[in-house]
Amino acid sequence: MDRIGFIGLGAMGRPMASNMARKGFNVLAYDLQPQALDAVVSAGATAASSSADVAAQSDIVFTMLQNSAQVQAVLEGEVFPNLKPGGIVVDMSTIEPSVTDRMIERAAKAGLIFVDSPVGRTTTFAERGESLLMVGAEAEHLERLEPILRSMATTIIHCGPPGHGIRIKIVNNFIVINTVQVNAEALALGAALGLDVEAELEVFNGTLATNGFLKVGFPEKTLAGDIEPGFQIDLAHKDISIAIATANELKVPLAVGAATREAINLARARGMGGKDFTPGFPMSGIFGGTGWKNWRPSRG
Amino acid sequence: MDRIGFIGLGAMGRPMASNMARKGFNVLAYDLQPQALDAVVSAGATAASSSADVAAQSDIVFTMLQNSAQVQAVLEGEVFPNLKPGGIVVDMSTIEPSVTDRMIERAAKAGLIFVDSPVGRTTTFAERGESLLMVGAEAEHLERLEPILRSMATTIIHCGPPGHGIRIKIVNNFIVINTVQVNAEALALGAALGLDVEAELEVFNGTLATNGFLKVGFPEKTLAGDIEPGFQIDLAHKDISIAIATANELKVPLAVGAATREAINLARARGMGGKDFTPGFPMSGIFGGTGWKNWRPSRG
Amino acid sequence: MDRIGFIGLGAMGRPMASNMARKGFNVLAYDLQPQALDAVVSAGATAASSSADVAAQSDIVFTMLQNSAQVQAVLEGEVFPNLKPGGIVVDMSTIEPSVTDRMIERAAKAGLIFVDSPVGRTTTFAERGESLLMVGAEAEHLERLEPILRSMATTIIHCGPPGHGIRIKIVNNFIVINTVQVNAEALALGAALGLDVEAELEVFNGTLATNGFLKVGFPEKTLAGDIEPGFQIDLAHKDISIAIATANELKVPLAVGAATREAINLARARGMGGKDFTPGFPMSGIFGGTGWKNWRPSRG
Amino acid sequence: MDRIGFIGLGAMGRPMASNMARKGFNVLAYDLQPQALDAVVSAGATAASSSADVAAQSDIVFTMLQNSAQVQAVLEGEVFPNLKPGGIVVDMSTIEPSVTDRMIERAAKAGLIFVDSPVGRTTTFAERGESLLMVGAEAEHLERLEPILRSMATTIIHCGPPGHGIRIKIVNNFIVINTVQVNAEALALGAALGLDVEAELEVFNGTLATNGFLKVGFPEKTLAGDIEPGFQIDLAHKDISIAIATANELKVPLAVGAATREAINLARARGMGGKDFTPGFPMSGIFGGTGWKNWRPSRG
Repeated sequence: MDRIGFIGLGAMGRPMASNMARKGFNVLAYDLQPQALDAVVSAGATAASSSADVAAQSDIVFTMLQNSAQVQAVLEGEVFPNLKPGGIVVDMSTIEPSVTDRMIERAAKAGLIFVDSPVGRTTTFAERGESLLMVGAEAEHLERLEPILRSMATTIIHCGPPGHGIRIKIVNNFIVINTVQVNAEALALGAALGLDVEAELEVFNGTLATNGFLKVGFPEKTLAGDIEPGFQIDLAHKDISIAIATANELKVPLAVGAATREAINLARARGMGGKDFTPGFPMSGIFGGTGWKNWRPSRG
Repeated sequence: MDRIGFIGLGAMGRPMASNMARKGFNVLAYDLQPQALDAVVSAGATAASSSADVAAQSDIVFTMLQNSAQVQAVLEGEVFPNLKPGGIVVDMSTIEPSVTDRMIERAAKAGLIFVDSPVGRTTTFAERGESLLMVGAEAEHLERLEPILRSMATTIIHCGPPGHGIRIKIVNNFIVINTVQVNAEALALGAALGLDVEAELEVFNGTLATNGFLKVGFPEKTLAGDIEPGFQIDLAHKDISIAIATANELKVPLAVGAATREAINLARARGMGGKDFTPGFPMSGIFGGTGWKNWRPSRG
Repeated sequence: MDRIGFIGLGAMGRPMASNMARKGFNVLAYDLQPQALDAVVSAGATAASSSADVAAQSDIVFTMLQNSAQVQAVLEGEVFPNLKPGGIVVDMSTIEPSVTDRMIERAAKAGLIFVDSPVGRTTTFAERGESLLMVGAEAEHLERLEPILRSMATTIIHCGPPGHGIRIKIVNNFIVINTVQVNAEALALGAALGLDVEAELEVFNGTLATNGFLKVGFPEKTLAGDIEPGFQIDLAHKDISIAIATANELKVPLAVGAATREAINLARARGMGGKDFTPGFPMSGIFGGTGWKNWRPSRG
Repeated sequence: MDRIGFIGLGAMGRPMASNMARKGFNVLAYDLQPQALDAVVSAGATAASSSADVAAQSDIVFTMLQNSAQVQAVLEGEVFPNLKPGGIVVDMSTIEPSVTDRMIERAAKAGLIFVDSPVGRTTTFAERGESLLMVGAEAEHLERLEPILRSMATTIIHCGPPGHGIRIKIVNNFIVINTVQVNAEALALGAALGLDVEAELEVFNGTLATNGFLKVGFPEKTLAGDIEPGFQIDLAHKDISIAIATANELKVPLAVGAATREAINLARARGMGGKDFTPGFPMSGIFGGTGWKNWRPSRG
């Protein structure tokens, strides 16, 4: 049975390592905070004396740290020099992709296998072992890790080779963070209009405002190459223009709404106003009529 | 039994009127296009010869028209002068709130009851009688209409007095349209990063990217007056900054992402970087630390 | 000698009408405020009893009013019905171009000549008779008006046929207003950096920060069809990226700066990063490589 | 007489070093490109064999290099180790302020004096010895350098201690770059409106569109603490709203204009719509009514 190391027992790492131990895995854990370590030990893990100690006694090392600098310090300074060749490092932290790339390279030089597996969903899900994992790994390595990952997560998505897990996580958070700002602008406009917030929430959570076009329009239309209009770009421009005019009259600033309107206007400037408003088409306005699908950054 | 009129049998009106007739209601329908009218007649409705004719022979008139100008022309020109006092007009079109306000006023002058009930979800839902309705009406009028509305919709939300249905619809569409642009920027960044689009969709549809903070963080935290951090504004700033830096390097323009980042930066400028990132807090950065909840537009 | 009427004696109208009278023109003036009228009378004008009175006794009527509604009320209600056919109306107000267009049409129907001549520069310049006028007029009419206009202005620019004066004014104000926001962001960043504001002003007022590219790069390069780089788009992207990164670190929100950076990024996405950064080229990124010059809105 | 070194003879460095030599200074020059070096030698300079050679034989070394990496390599690798203690390094390159800070620190450790003096205006001005210099230096060092700087520049501005020259340059370029985008949007709108471009240029270059508020409103009003309106924020909002509505109708995307409008809207949301529109007030909307003047980034 694989000896598993776990370094970093914060708000996410603690429940994740505990679930692993509770489900019968052999876990050697470490954190700079003794209390965090105690909690995981009471779930059945063994305490290590340092990150280097974890690495020296494990076959597979998980890290769940706060930022790029910590990951770099722990992995380069303690894990890579002490883990036996053929060992696996699974970094679950959310860090800069360029640092992940550097870790992939360094791990390879040390004869180690590197996997990135950042975590989706909140701490509540982590406590229940119901996280979503975005795994960047070679298929064979994911296969080997899967039983262990199952102790922490109900949804495990193979995002591609190493480095692709962290990249999808960054793009995913980009959506989440922008969506929160969109909600804030919408709710401020609703407040200025004197609307009932409970009614608003009931409506929003029952319509495509739950990012429904990503589930429906995008796979069925954009990915299928179908640009004939379900909902026309020109109609979207009309609706958002009503919202922005109303908000400007009521002195509600909608910074993101205004940027979206001009992005739609750009698609119209390029003659696409009559086409469908699925997620690919705002970008088609920018990258040309053949759609964003074939788009790659220019080398100019 | 109420005699029901239905004017406007386009992509949405046709299935809605048909469902009404199919479920046994007494429907008198009209549209400028004879074919549209035929389809509704075969579902059990009776054909009228004009909008004025519909109004003269109905107790309740539904309208589902294309824009503000059509609604104004049909209601002021044909329906209000011919409907008997005490009759109800239910406008389901998506139009400018100021035009709805004018219709409310004109209806009242003619001794009529006005209800706005714009429709959420797509035509597919309308075909199945599973629309969502955002109703602006006095409670007693909604009560009287509810059995009829049930023939078209599975979700009926009372948004407030007349005029509030159309206003919530405008705010709802504001979220939908902005979210589509956010998706487009995210997917363009994903494409530039060489990510697998199927993996992306699986991830996004399994996380808070489905506008999850509106379901979770907003009611549990912002509305409860709890600003202690689940996910800090400063961390959101860090994550979106990584995305934008990466995109700028890869020549992917993120107009909305950049606007969001500066809105977050504004919250930080106002000393709120350590607070929670639920939907109210980006606006708190703008409207002050007490939160957007008490915010009303200034009278300056 | 032409009998001149002047309606609207506010902050701008008062000094302008006074200069006209002082320089020997025969001016019949009117304003709702008696004090404003007194001031112009002491400069040599005659007081009229109403706008209709002005129109009835003048060959040429100037209006300098506050907004579209006032212009419409005064011209349609009092001037057009009372001015003799062949008379000239010169509107100097800043209003919506669509209202100007309506005035042009109504004047023509009444057998009158319409000229729009909004005013540039501040009240200080108006006091000294040194305004700049943006005249929309047929050439022969401008020729006839020129001696009168010279009493108020040192710079008279023939912008095109009627309606083009007000349009250039709107575009001009667009530049002015955006530039003020750009300054505000720059000065906030300077404050956060602890820079000396006197030194900043001395620098900015001595460089291309005085909108210098409009004087130099635009006529010499863009209009001449020369896109070879003086200052490359990629370098502009580098410089603005340093400013934005610094500002985000210091918690200074730069909403406009961020929008500009993405507009530049868009030009790079379309392969133009190595081209010159004159005013036409950010738009070239949007409207395609042949430049904005041939661009006209699509009819899509 | 000081022995002067000059490293980096590109588009800007070549004319600057040549002017120095032509005006009688003793210049030892170096560049990796032999042709560049030849041109400066024919103006009277002496050729060195390397940057290290320049440093070893000079009292004062000027550098005019392409980017942060070059400055770091040349100064740390060749100049600092070879220049005698008490020597002065004057870096004229445009680089990241954090790299300048690092150079200041390294120079101090080596017992050297560091001055940053980036250059304003274009190459045409550099050829004529009419550049503008933004000098970050202790006063006594600037005094010693001034006769030499006069050979290259007609305007020498002491921006503050070392590091402040490069910072003002970054802020200055921020204004320049944003202004170009503003021009581009204005000219695209003008093109869609069918306006005559020569008339537009004549107007813009004769009004406050030449960043006039920075010369007038800012020192006279904002810095003087006078917020009473010359031109009200609400009027600016009205004018830019007309431009944006017109542009959206004509399908001209105005990304920066839209961001500015929402920044103004924000000032209105904070009750400042009736105040003056000088450069400080858009920021006052953000940073609070006391104005941006006292504003410093929060430590939150």
